[in-house]
Amino acid sequence: MGTWNDYLEQNQPRFFAELLDFLRIPSISALSEHAADVQRAAEWVAARVTAAGMEHVQILATGGHPVVYADWLHAPGKPTVMIYGHFDVQPADPYDLWTSPPFAPEVREDRVYARGASDDKGNMLVPILAVEALLKSQGALPVNLKFFFEGQEEIGSPQLGDFIPKHTDLLACDMVLSSDGGQWSEEQPLVLVGLRGGCGVQIDVKAAKADLHSGMYGGMVQNPIHALTTIIAGLHAADGRVTVPGFYDQVRPLSAQDRERIAQVPFDAAAEKASLEVPGFFGEAGYTPRERIWARPTLEVNGIWGGFQGEGVKTVLPSEAHAKITCRLVADQNPTQIVELLIDHISRQVIPGVTVSVKPLAFRAYPYLVPEDEPGNVVVREILHEIYGVEPFYVRSGGSIPVCSLFQRHLGAYTASFGFALDDENIHSPDEFFRLSSFRKGQSAYCTLLERLGR
Amino acid sequence: MGTWNDYLEQNQPRFFAELLDFLRIPSISALSEHAADVQRAAEWVAARVTAAGMEHVQILATGGHPVVYADWLHAPGKPTVMIYGHFDVQPADPYDLWTSPPFAPEVREDRVYARGASDDKGNMLVPILAVEALLKSQGALPVNLKFFFEGQEEIGSPQLGDFIPKHTDLLACDMVLSSDGGQWSEEQPLVLVGLRGGCGVQIDVKAAKADLHSGMYGGMVQNPIHALTTIIAGLHAADGRVTVPGFYDQVRPLSAQDRERIAQVPFDAAAEKASLEVPGFFGEAGYTPRERIWARPTLEVNGIWGGFQGEGVKTVLPSEAHAKITCRLVADQNPTQIVELLIDHISRQVIPGVTVSVKPLAFRAYPYLVPEDEPGNVVVREILHEIYGVEPFYVRSGGSIPVCSLFQRHLGAYTASFGFALDDENIHSPDEFFRLSSFRKGQSAYCTLLERLGR
Repeated sequence: MGTWNDYLEQNQPRFFAELLDFLRIPSISALSEHAADVQRAAEWVAARVTAAGMEHVQILATGGHPVVYADWLHAPGKPTVMIYGHFDVQPADPYDLWTSPPFAPEVREDRVYARGASDDKGNMLVPILAVEALLKSQGALPVNLKFFFEGQEEIGSPQLGDFIPKHTDLLACDMVLSSDGGQWSEEQPLVLVGLRGGCGVQIDVKAAKADLHSGMYGGMVQNPIHALTTIIAGLHAADGRVTVPGFYDQVRPLSAQDRERIAQVPFDAAAEKASLEVPGFFGEAGYTPRERIWARPTLEVNGIWGGFQGEGVKTVLPSEAHAKITCRLVADQNPTQIVELLIDHISRQVIPGVTVSVKPLAFRAYPYLVPEDEPGNVVVREILHEIYGVEPFYVRSGGSIPVCSLFQRHLGAYTASFGFALDDENIHSPDEFFRLSSFRKGQSAYCTLLERLGR
Repeated sequence: MGTWNDYLEQNQPRFFAELLDFLRIPSISALSEHAADVQRAAEWVAARVTAAGMEHVQILATGGHPVVYADWLHAPGKPTVMIYGHFDVQPADPYDLWTSPPFAPEVREDRVYARGASDDKGNMLVPILAVEALLKSQGALPVNLKFFFEGQEEIGSPQLGDFIPKHTDLLACDMVLSSDGGQWSEEQPLVLVGLRGGCGVQIDVKAAKADLHSGMYGGMVQNPIHALTTIIAGLHAADGRVTVPGFYDQVRPLSAQDRERIAQVPFDAAAEKASLEVPGFFGEAGYTPRERIWARPTLEVNGIWGGFQGEGVKTVLPSEAHAKITCRLVADQNPTQIVELLIDHISRQVIPGVTVSVKPLAFRAYPYLVPEDEPGNVVVREILHEIYGVEPFYVRSGGSIPVCSLFQRHLGAYTASFGFALDDENIHSPDEFFRLSSFRKGQSAYCTLLERLGR
């Protein structure tokens, strides 16, 4: 047997081909017509971790999209580490904005373009390959290891809130490593110390039984789009604050130290503005752009629709209008309580001539804060320092990974983020890509990290 | 030769088959992919009026969808009557709300269901059949007759504003009869004395270059849906009035007599509410529902869209949001001026973090009022009284037929509405239908009307 590094070197062409196979599965968890594809992705993952040498491989039913579990528990006296990732992906629309089709991966300039390339298929394949390299080159792992890969992260892991507390024995571990994360840049690593939570509602406004002629009825029958826009416009004040009563009540105020920590991480406003092509930034008054996304809650309309969207003119008075809204939450907001506040506030509005209904969306994640000195993060920081040669930034993420707070609350295990995505990789957008250099770098990094954790 | 009535009786089965053929052509003027179908409908009409015995049949280019012209001018000393109608139809979406497909006409209980059945293909075929019956049974018509059928009514006749003034010799006439209209009920006729005009704009709001992850950017980058809903919500006051400065400046106030005329026409609010299945009516404060649709201008959002509209959750911060808006106008508002006011008002709003653009839509119609004692209307009233046995209601319509004001301004001819649609026929909505009884009744009515005009 050679070293794990020899093994990795020799098998890169095969690993790359496997990555492409994985990316071809359109495992979109949000769309029911793709449920079979999510299942297919689970089967692909189960087969792949089996081939890597893991044991007790299982595809476990959750009531929704499945999870894949596997373990290797032959390192008595060593810690038990659980590696997390997800094999589902975001929807890929609008398809016409992709340079190459989202599920026909294409390599351009050392980047592989596909939906899920960065978030999270490329990243979650990395530790599987690292484990295979360790097992095939050394016949054993330096720690006890569990894999926990899910198929519902992109819809907010709706079934895991039930699943994890019911499987605490199976999932018991000392720490979690999440592949669903990234680094600051190709030169600069990071340690993740916070995530936002989230929740959401859909608003449905109904006026007449069918679309009406705007000449025959316009002026007499309420337009549901007018009603909906009135409701939505009222959810924010002009200074960017959310107006839903009670929305900020449980928000932990930023301490002077928090603000200093956040300010230490560079933010190039001009470069960011140019890269996003926005005319300017906008957000809640009294906070810096970074504070707004890392440490303040938001309410965003993710989609709105009603009436005629085609080319030209259709003088219709629509019968319905709809909006999907999600919030990002920060400690110590409770997603269930925020959904109640939203439903209560919107339902209480009186708009004549329409029926307004509000229902929760299947997205509910607690916000999450990790102590900087948590043991997993201490080792992650050490490894990253070695690989990159610089001290990592301590950052929060504006995104949500619902399982992190579930692992913490039900398994007593903190999650250290250890992934190799980068911010420019268009996750959740057209032309998502993953760097092949990150794919390779991550494999060695995971081998090193697992060895270090086994010492 | 028999009478025109014998001819009509003998040919009903063929006429019905021809109606179905006409309805099968998806001549949707609003959608460019159906331009060839609109052209095909023009060819169908040209062939049909030729078969009816009309002369000088021409399909005339307009720069947009064509018009069909034909004449029969062998009644010296008699008035020249031009009959108007349109062979284009509204878009048919949402398709899934149709009981039978919109372009596969189906007869259920003496009604033919198809897009355009009532508005206006069924109605415009009626005078063609009447003219055929007169020519075939009597060898001549009682008046000089012109047909003017257009293919762009449903998009606001954008090219006719140029076309009609350029063809005043060809189109010269003493009066116009419009097939694009209806009666009050199966028992109650009407005389149309007013139409609303119209115009429209599209609002496009752009934030970042692409859809963004709502976790990574939410709170820092403006959401274009928030911006758009703020703009739209601000276009109406809570009391239903349009807030665009200057919008009402040219509106002719309702006189006490106008209000009395309108109040004479019965309005069963409870029945109307039940039929539309609305929880209540809503419109501009200070006016009755009927005054609002007949004699007050409106601003309606016909469609709104942006971001994710699919099933489930997609936590996206959209890059764009859009809305289509049309206004209905009343005398003496000027559609060109109202478009300028809208563009000016919306463009002047300052919303940070987004680019807002407003462009005119191809819909521009002057409002139209006909004197009650205009000669065409006097004869129409007389005939309707004979057919129905009751005095017609004098009504206005909330809809717009842009050519009526063009005929008046450029040909000096008023238009008398003489059509047989009824209000429940779902025009512009799913399950549009036309009564076969109206189809038959209209043919005799047109024969009688033309005879009377020839006396």
